[in-house]
Amino acid sequence: MTVREIVEVHPQQSKIDLEVLLRCVDACVECAATCVSCADASLGEEKDRDELIRCIRLSLDGADVCEATGRVATRLTEPDFQLIAATVEACAVACRVCREECERHAEHHEHCRRTAAVCLVCEQACTDLLAALG
Amino acid sequence: MTVREIVEVHPQQSKIDLEVLLRCVDACVECAATCVSCADASLGEEKDRDELIRCIRLSLDGADVCEATGRVATRLTEPDFQLIAATVEACAVACRVCREECERHAEHHEHCRRTAAVCLVCEQACTDLLAALG
Amino acid sequence: MTVREIVEVHPQQSKIDLEVLLRCVDACVECAATCVSCADASLGEEKDRDELIRCIRLSLDGADVCEATGRVATRLTEPDFQLIAATVEACAVACRVCREECERHAEHHEHCRRTAAVCLVCEQACTDLLAALG
Amino acid sequence: MTVREIVEVHPQQSKIDLEVLLRCVDACVECAATCVSCADASLGEEKDRDELIRCIRLSLDGADVCEATGRVATRLTEPDFQLIAATVEACAVACRVCREECERHAEHHEHCRRTAAVCLVCEQACTDLLAALG
Repeated sequence: MTVREIVEVHPQQSKIDLEVLLRCVDACVECAATCVSCADASLGEEKDRDELIRCIRLSLDGADVCEATGRVATRLTEPDFQLIAATVEACAVACRVCREECERHAEHHEHCRRTAAVCLVCEQACTDLLAALG
Repeated sequence: MTVREIVEVHPQQSKIDLEVLLRCVDACVECAATCVSCADASLGEEKDRDELIRCIRLSLDGADVCEATGRVATRLTEPDFQLIAATVEACAVACRVCREECERHAEHHEHCRRTAAVCLVCEQACTDLLAALG
Repeated sequence: MTVREIVEVHPQQSKIDLEVLLRCVDACVECAATCVSCADASLGEEKDRDELIRCIRLSLDGADVCEATGRVATRLTEPDFQLIAATVEACAVACRVCREECERHAEHHEHCRRTAAVCLVCEQACTDLLAALG
Repeated sequence: MTVREIVEVHPQQSKIDLEVLLRCVDACVECAATCVSCADASLGEEKDRDELIRCIRLSLDGADVCEATGRVATRLTEPDFQLIAATVEACAVACRVCREECERHAEHHEHCRRTAAVCLVCEQACTDLLAALG
């Protein structure tokens, strides 16, 4: 992703391990897009839709929280680490909750199986960034 | 706001005190829009811009986190209260941090003074919702 | 809304009629929040859900386009009027399409009736801003 | 990106050439993230900041419009092609305008050079999708 290239030439230095940070940014951007797509695929499941309502709702939440977290984590100029940590923490929770619901439908719906995997990566990237933030 | 009217006729019941919830939704939507505007006004301050960089950055963060939180808190269908609480908690932190920075410029920049007031309302509305969530 | 107060003290002057601009910003912010809520209420309609899928999808689109347009229209510093006009034009289309679908369900679903009314206000506010942009 | 994998197993068929659609979705997601990062890097340029104000503002616009367009283009369930076309059209304009400004700073700021390249890809992907939409 190009954010990585921009961060490499960014005029401000980061106190955070850039590799851990960039993995989180990348995971948030990917997970937000995936959640938008999974909510839409679930909405389009004519037969099984009624069982996927919780999955749709949590994917919509996941998309919104991941998108905001990706933006906040991307910014290196004048960061506030309390704000970043609280946002990344919320993102880890959103990804876990969305993943757990997607896993319940993974056997019958391939899009849920793939979204669960992406949520797990993002949850882990958020947890790693939280550890790096101390 | 119309969200209040929609929530009154919403097919799903909420376990959360609706008045507390709606005050948080309203505050998040208002604070997101205000932060977008304050970041832009600060960016347009030709003479004092260099002192407002932290204010711009935290307003951009505040806009993103408030917007996502307003969306998450609005949804009543199949809510996950851990996810909602973590997001609202992040929003309270974002509003506090943005408010503290805006307050530092409130004497010289009326837009910062007004944004600080809106952030305070949102921070309090988030704290109240967190208390209601238990 | 506080954006109005900030615009009044904004360091940059606007070439656009501020009253027309602010009515569009206000309508976009209100319509985005309303669309988020209507999509969620429709998702929660257990009996009639299958008839509301197009309504949910267009409300999700409406929320996203109105939110982006509200942000773009709010910014007064270094505006590009071609960009603003194209975005406001897309918003007018999104509001019209969402309104037309909501109107089809207005008799049976009060939340659709209210959302249609909000979409109409936003569509008109966007059309007025486009006229002012020339 | 995982959206591609989800679209392959999506329950609803698309009338649009999926390859053209997915290239646009991918470009929008990448361009939104890049614009967030470029706005932040420009904000952090202590010496040259005053020359980058228009670049910052147009990157903020680009981020918002690309993000909304990426979401709208991702959804395959009950699409409205007028809405999609108007949004993609706005995105093409936003990318062109942001690219032209970034190009003016490309020689002195590597992050602007890279962002201009990403904007060009997104502008082209939007133009291609518009052609496919007919």
